[in-house]
Amino acid sequence: MDVRILDTTLRDGEQTPGVSLTPDEKLRIAIKLDELGVDVIEAGSAITSEGEREGIKKVVSEGLSAEICSFARAVKGDVDSALDCGVDSVHLVVPTSDLHIKHKLRKTREEVKNLAIETTKYAVDQGLLVELSAEDSTRSDFEYLTQLFREGIDAGAKRICACDTVGMLTPEKAYDFYGRLSQLGVPLSVHCHNDFGLAVANSLSGLRAGAGQAHVTVNGIGERAGNASLEETVMALYSLYQVKTSINFEMLYEISRMVARITGVHIQPNKAIVGENAFAHESGIHADGVIKKAETYEPITPELVGHKRRFVMGKHVGSHIIRKRIQEMGLRVDDEKFQQIFSRIKALGDMGKCVTDVDLQAITEDVLGLMSEKVVELDELTIVSGNKVTPTASVKLNIDSNEVLEAGIGIGPVDAAIVAIRKSIKDFADIELEEYHVDAITGGTDALIDVVVKLKHDGNIVTARSTQPDIIMASVEAYIGGINKILSSKFVKKIKEGDL
Amino acid sequence: MDVRILDTTLRDGEQTPGVSLTPDEKLRIAIKLDELGVDVIEAGSAITSEGEREGIKKVVSEGLSAEICSFARAVKGDVDSALDCGVDSVHLVVPTSDLHIKHKLRKTREEVKNLAIETTKYAVDQGLLVELSAEDSTRSDFEYLTQLFREGIDAGAKRICACDTVGMLTPEKAYDFYGRLSQLGVPLSVHCHNDFGLAVANSLSGLRAGAGQAHVTVNGIGERAGNASLEETVMALYSLYQVKTSINFEMLYEISRMVARITGVHIQPNKAIVGENAFAHESGIHADGVIKKAETYEPITPELVGHKRRFVMGKHVGSHIIRKRIQEMGLRVDDEKFQQIFSRIKALGDMGKCVTDVDLQAITEDVLGLMSEKVVELDELTIVSGNKVTPTASVKLNIDSNEVLEAGIGIGPVDAAIVAIRKSIKDFADIELEEYHVDAITGGTDALIDVVVKLKHDGNIVTARSTQPDIIMASVEAYIGGINKILSSKFVKKIKEGDL
Repeated sequence: MDVRILDTTLRDGEQTPGVSLTPDEKLRIAIKLDELGVDVIEAGSAITSEGEREGIKKVVSEGLSAEICSFARAVKGDVDSALDCGVDSVHLVVPTSDLHIKHKLRKTREEVKNLAIETTKYAVDQGLLVELSAEDSTRSDFEYLTQLFREGIDAGAKRICACDTVGMLTPEKAYDFYGRLSQLGVPLSVHCHNDFGLAVANSLSGLRAGAGQAHVTVNGIGERAGNASLEETVMALYSLYQVKTSINFEMLYEISRMVARITGVHIQPNKAIVGENAFAHESGIHADGVIKKAETYEPITPELVGHKRRFVMGKHVGSHIIRKRIQEMGLRVDDEKFQQIFSRIKALGDMGKCVTDVDLQAITEDVLGLMSEKVVELDELTIVSGNKVTPTASVKLNIDSNEVLEAGIGIGPVDAAIVAIRKSIKDFADIELEEYHVDAITGGTDALIDVVVKLKHDGNIVTARSTQPDIIMASVEAYIGGINKILSSKFVKKIKEGDL
Repeated sequence: MDVRILDTTLRDGEQTPGVSLTPDEKLRIAIKLDELGVDVIEAGSAITSEGEREGIKKVVSEGLSAEICSFARAVKGDVDSALDCGVDSVHLVVPTSDLHIKHKLRKTREEVKNLAIETTKYAVDQGLLVELSAEDSTRSDFEYLTQLFREGIDAGAKRICACDTVGMLTPEKAYDFYGRLSQLGVPLSVHCHNDFGLAVANSLSGLRAGAGQAHVTVNGIGERAGNASLEETVMALYSLYQVKTSINFEMLYEISRMVARITGVHIQPNKAIVGENAFAHESGIHADGVIKKAETYEPITPELVGHKRRFVMGKHVGSHIIRKRIQEMGLRVDDEKFQQIFSRIKALGDMGKCVTDVDLQAITEDVLGLMSEKVVELDELTIVSGNKVTPTASVKLNIDSNEVLEAGIGIGPVDAAIVAIRKSIKDFADIELEEYHVDAITGGTDALIDVVVKLKHDGNIVTARSTQPDIIMASVEAYIGGINKILSSKFVKKIKEGDL
């Protein structure tokens, strides 16, 4: 059994409260979804607005391999809007539960069914492929639901879909429900919401029971708790059920990042498959196991989904991983020194701190007595900024015991300060600022600000951090800290090449 | 059937890469878990470090209602550490898959079983309740697994637990697997990981099959993709299976926020039950339905879990919700004016903008010709800062057509600027800065910075935002924007009290 994937990131996903995509953003995501290999792209709901139609039209004119679909209600105008965009198909949705029919639409069952059939006929007559879809189907009278589907199929619908609109199915019920609907003679879609965290499990149950297509979104975004997540659904199908889809798994991490960035809906670190921690290990037992044999604590390899393995050092860290890291830095330590390093890391963990590679290197060098002098030291920093002043900074640095004075201007005071420092260290002009990151700050204007910079030099990246209530000072200290890290590792390298 | 909840937020949850809790943080979370009503608190792994033992001891000496448990390996020293902390029970974990036995431990099945039995006996002799737990049990030889459990029960283990360590169960397999283990005559725990997004579904299946206790964490945090989430598991049990637990549901949202804040592991907006969007509605169809009858698009009420319903206005917004909001603001608009407002909101949505209440109010007031002059306008801002300079700001503001000059000092330049403005508007000294929020910034030092301030006045909170590459200018503009918002609503109020 092969399963088809209808991705609705651009429709149900975009209905995530607070998310609005521009036509160009829709196009960029659609192109990526097509490369990913989804079978159908539900590109939007054409009736929504002028911009929405522009977006759908852009997706259509790109000539992608995927079928391009628009959402439509059982309203002629909705179908006309979809036609105007040139889509291949409509996802034609009618509510079928009495709750929706009575309270939302204030109509009767008969009226709703007639609208569904008429609109299906109209859309089919206009040459559209119709996937007739029942909203809130899982709280509907089953006889009515199947009657509506049967008449819809007679009217020309080529696929049907049953939506678990408020996520109330369980895997057992999904198996029974979709199993019965899959007898109706046309391909059936599962469309599950995640209000109780069961969207993926319910989708898998429906597919096992005979449905042939899953409606999913990247990162599981969508109304409220969202839809079944594309990446979890396809990887579970592949790894746990040996069922094929047309998805290129190794693009999953990349498209997850892209959708998170464009929609602004971040994903939690412990999100399955694509979260930052999905293949991260901290505890001694786990890291040790993964180093010996990755399968002990990884059900699939991170490479399979385009992700990366990551080790984190905190208070649960085991000695194996610390030893391995120290070796990777090219340093040798005896058992006594190692115990000193290990205790200091555990102590940092107990204080609630997480130990980065830079910290480990600093601790190790300190224990080994290798700490170099700071090569670059900040003596003076002055900045002037405002709304009628060009942000300007001057710095006095002590570089290798020489005093260097420089000034810089920038787009803001932080930028000006960094520009001034960069000018001062022109001897190290090949040090590039790879990333500047400030964590979200919440509190007062005197809250502590955590700045992390990543600097690149000779193909290596060093990370340095500073935490201060003043964002400019935090940025400057982190930047200078990173430069010293680079120069100090050069110094350590020299020692290693000599005879430590 | 009632289900018991073992919460392992403080053990498996704390093993989330990058998370380290201080002893006091452990205590705060434990107190809250006890109020929440969990049956067992796995407070940590006593062997880990001195700080970990201090944390567990603090939890023990608080005298909570819940059973307090420590993780332990099948190692005498681990049990001794747990005893030293005074816990009620140990979660005694031994790997049972050949993969773990051979590759991680480099032992034989027989050796591991003997260690498990000996350590169980030792712990029982010392008066500890033992929950004997099999790591990677779902990839283990079932005969070996049950033999180990049988001998462990003979040795005095009062509960057993089977861990799906890398999350490879499916709901069907979980039903079969836990169903068979539940025949062994002592209470059985399910412990499921979320690598394929199935932890909650698998836990529910195991409980249906006869297991009596679920291992869960708040927000589903834990190694890699985390553990089964407490809030999803208990709410699915309650709403979908009518199974009772001892959890006070209305504390779920609060404890979720607390754990997110203390661990630093944020949860995604579309997280089920406790995510910011779990009860948020944007699209016209949904918001309209919820206003008419909440059950149309909400499986449970937000109040049940201590959460709140939220409407968001974006490009999918329907006219019903906009009309309702305008009425709530106490403004009256005719149909023509309403259409103008509605089109402007849709247009903002097409540009990728989300419309806040403040925007809606501004647009409405503008269409109604109510826009007040800006009461406070920034004329000049100058700041001087640095490492040897006290951060200083001067402002020239135009307040109600009067020029006001002020200066302020602060802990950093942003703080200094805000201090200067606060001094200038002393007539409105009852305006308090309730919250200052800067979103995470990633990119270069010239990246756009989004500042949101919340100001409080007369018990009302207004939100204002500014996005600029210069954090100082963004902060000042947002702050002044908020002040104008407050003053302008006073102005509108006056008009309403008159005769509009």
